Amino acid sequence: MTLEGKLLIGQSAVSGSSRPIDAINPATNERLAPTYMGGTRTEVERACELAETAFTTFRETSPETRAAFLDTVASEIEGIGDTLIERAMAETGLPRARLEGERGRTCGQLRLFANVVRAGEWLDVRIDPAMPDRQPMPRADLRQRHIGLGPVAVFGASNFPLAFSVAGGDTASALAAGCPVIVKGHSAHPGTSELVGRAVQRAVTACGLPEGTFSLLFGSGSEIGQALVADPRIQAVGFTGSRGGGNALMKTAQARPQPIPVYAEMSSINPVFLMPEALKARGEQIADGFVGSLNMGAGQFCTNPGLVIAIKSPELDDFIAAAAEGVKDSASQTMLTPGIHDAYEQGVARLSSSHKVRESARGQVGASPNQCRAGLFVTTAEDFLNEPELQEEVFGATSLVIECADHNDLRRVASQLEGQLTITLQLDDGDLPAARALMPIVERKAGRVLANGWPTGVEVCHAMVHGGPYPATSDSRTTSVGSAAIFRFLRPVCYQALPEALLPEPLKDGNPWQVSRLVDGKRE
Amino acid sequence: MTLEGKLLIGQSAVSGSSRPIDAINPATNERLAPTYMGGTRTEVERACELAETAFTTFRETSPETRAAFLDTVASEIEGIGDTLIERAMAETGLPRARLEGERGRTCGQLRLFANVVRAGEWLDVRIDPAMPDRQPMPRADLRQRHIGLGPVAVFGASNFPLAFSVAGGDTASALAAGCPVIVKGHSAHPGTSELVGRAVQRAVTACGLPEGTFSLLFGSGSEIGQALVADPRIQAVGFTGSRGGGNALMKTAQARPQPIPVYAEMSSINPVFLMPEALKARGEQIADGFVGSLNMGAGQFCTNPGLVIAIKSPELDDFIAAAAEGVKDSASQTMLTPGIHDAYEQGVARLSSSHKVRESARGQVGASPNQCRAGLFVTTAEDFLNEPELQEEVFGATSLVIECADHNDLRRVASQLEGQLTITLQLDDGDLPAARALMPIVERKAGRVLANGWPTGVEVCHAMVHGGPYPATSDSRTTSVGSAAIFRFLRPVCYQALPEALLPEPLKDGNPWQVSRLVDGKRE
Repeated sequence: MTLEGKLLIGQSAVSGSSRPIDAINPATNERLAPTYMGGTRTEVERACELAETAFTTFRETSPETRAAFLDTVASEIEGIGDTLIERAMAETGLPRARLEGERGRTCGQLRLFANVVRAGEWLDVRIDPAMPDRQPMPRADLRQRHIGLGPVAVFGASNFPLAFSVAGGDTASALAAGCPVIVKGHSAHPGTSELVGRAVQRAVTACGLPEGTFSLLFGSGSEIGQALVADPRIQAVGFTGSRGGGNALMKTAQARPQPIPVYAEMSSINPVFLMPEALKARGEQIADGFVGSLNMGAGQFCTNPGLVIAIKSPELDDFIAAAAEGVKDSASQTMLTPGIHDAYEQGVARLSSSHKVRESARGQVGASPNQCRAGLFVTTAEDFLNEPELQEEVFGATSLVIECADHNDLRRVASQLEGQLTITLQLDDGDLPAARALMPIVERKAGRVLANGWPTGVEVCHAMVHGGPYPATSDSRTTSVGSAAIFRFLRPVCYQALPEALLPEPLKDGNPWQVSRLVDGKRE
Repeated sequence: MTLEGKLLIGQSAVSGSSRPIDAINPATNERLAPTYMGGTRTEVERACELAETAFTTFRETSPETRAAFLDTVASEIEGIGDTLIERAMAETGLPRARLEGERGRTCGQLRLFANVVRAGEWLDVRIDPAMPDRQPMPRADLRQRHIGLGPVAVFGASNFPLAFSVAGGDTASALAAGCPVIVKGHSAHPGTSELVGRAVQRAVTACGLPEGTFSLLFGSGSEIGQALVADPRIQAVGFTGSRGGGNALMKTAQARPQPIPVYAEMSSINPVFLMPEALKARGEQIADGFVGSLNMGAGQFCTNPGLVIAIKSPELDDFIAAAAEGVKDSASQTMLTPGIHDAYEQGVARLSSSHKVRESARGQVGASPNQCRAGLFVTTAEDFLNEPELQEEVFGATSLVIECADHNDLRRVASQLEGQLTITLQLDDGDLPAARALMPIVERKAGRVLANGWPTGVEVCHAMVHGGPYPATSDSRTTSVGSAAIFRFLRPVCYQALPEALLPEPLKDGNPWQVSRLVDGKRE
């Protein structure tokens, strides 16, 4: 499988003619061939035209056809073999084990959505039968199902080159919803993107689907992405990245003649509350777990624990000391891109130079380029509450401990937090009353609340919420991981008194797809 | 029950100090006492403060408590008796039978949501049990439920002074979701609003709920409404009204430091396709049904059939002639406000003066002020496609017939339609092939597709979608009528490995609320 450095427009592979994109090996700062010439509005136009055409057919495929397609995408990705892992390692600096795990997760995610499509909960079928004799007015037969919104634009993220990229969660859930997908590949891993994109392309052919079901664009800067979001045929956007990037896409989407939803997962510092009894009982163990979570993927997880909140006490001092030891011993790790490494260094420098913050520990200095040195800093609740910029995400393996005077202080800090993907409580039985008082605050701030675990590691399942209030995401009513992610790309349609011959399959008498239905408000 | 002309802030009734609002009887242009002094930012601030406080308690009320509250609101509204109907008649010009029907619908809607709360589908409970022995990584226990977004701002609509106003669908569904509601009452029916607002106030007391669960503000102009939507404690907005009004609220909501969702139901002309065989078989009967639907509530329904699309034929000529007879015979009807009447006259004048449109009929001239004269106009597909302003809603009993050359033309017109609340097909068996070709187009354009009925009359049930793509609404993924309307005000939260003592009731082992759950992706 030789990389060609091309954009994939439907079944074609075409050369772009805009600015070149070269992948960089962040461990060496070396360029990786081939060069990807960025796309232009011509390719955006063509991809959108194909997607619009494909939508008519693709959205009405049977559950089995669509599920088989998702399964085929998974098999095709696995079929790339080690070439994929090696290219992803070179482009991201991430270690083999992590990328093999991420590939497993990505393919598992595609297969989960295949089963979601088969199970049919996403259709949310509701039937209110006719009541011709009702007084004073008869009731017509009313049936509801969900249909896909239309072509979806997906922006690949840098930090999960497989699971949140070309065939990641956004793409899988949009395809599951019956929406063609146009991916804007991340410029940090174009080769990985091309490999996965071609796997999807092959699956489209193998399953006899219209070619516009999937396209993959590249482009440096924001031109291609903005053109894509502004195109009238695009009906929704999936994005994982920075707050600035997400906000810019939201703005474009809202300024369209027809505004469309943007699902942007942006910024979260994932606070961890260390409750007093837990600290007393197992402070050192918690410190170990914390440092492990902090260092995962060089701290480049959306759910990295960037904030630790606890009441000042000798046990907290011991925790900080133990965590500081762990951080000092932390080996440096290659970050995803030189740009991310620069931003990390600036973020750490901002903390280091603040009079309100004291440096507790820094990790090992790296020998190669773009290495992340872990960091641990400490401040007081008072200072944290007075300095809003201390809530700004430092993307990488750095965390800030906030010392509170008492439980009241703890709740004040909780109340001032911005929206988060996760909030974690480390607690023991003796902490339950205080934790109970915290719950109503934290569940308004986060999409996921954890006890005695660590936020890194997002299970792909039915109950998962990888979402949360702004700025964690642009839409707190949704999740970008787990089976409920499909609902982002669906809308309900009601059919009133339609003859059986015009009713969509899942609404027909006899329930041919055998899906769960709400009949007169009762679950069947 | 004497009207006091006051704002209702929690359990208080307070006098505003901003510009005065006087209700006008549109049938006579007479002012109706009392004067309502508009609220200021002080009252917005106080109502939001109370709502925020109330949210903590109200959102965690048991299903039975919340359901009993909704039932009590319904009983309290019925308890007002004829005073409510008489005041509403005076303020809106709508006839008694219509308002009595609307009251029944409003109370039925509140009781439907009471049952929705009890049934618990809105919680969308999902449980993925722990798998401690899973390889390579164990799975933690993960449970999901939905919680209320927070305090909601609801804007009363002029055209349904009960069903889309103070205790209408937006309020009922937001309360059902556990969200306190602050209503900005419509200035056209402040007395009706006060009566209903006091009924809700009494229900709050009777059910022992925190006073901030409900407040009612008045204010002329947009100041109060904009201040409400901009308040950081407000977490969602329900609105039914003009496209301009909805767009302005969306803009404010998106410009907040934390953007919030706006559910605006705005603009729809509800196209009706008359298929050839149906026209042949029963053109006259269809004309009767059409004129009846057109005249309902002086054409001031969101689902009024403002567009008729058919293929040019002798049968279509007959239909137009029959419909014209019906329109000519249509008695004039009082419109809701002098402003709405003025806008209607301007809209009709725009059609009358267009060279692309021919006037087919006008209804009876009224003897009293603010009377709606029905109108029927005709144009060609060619002209309709070339003149985008012919798609603009004329709010009132006027409709435009579009003559198409053939089926191809029909589909071209369908493809050019803006988003709609409803699209109707009048069809016979012989029309099925052509209708089947239209379906993929129309279901992308509308929230509800009807066969052989009329769009006016929106059933309040589980399968209803009163929504649709922009500009019909601001969010095509939602409905503002029917039980699914509750999902607009909810967001999912995932709980990972929480001790039983901290789990919310509906997620506890043993399913104490006995709600439907998705366990490992399977419905239980």
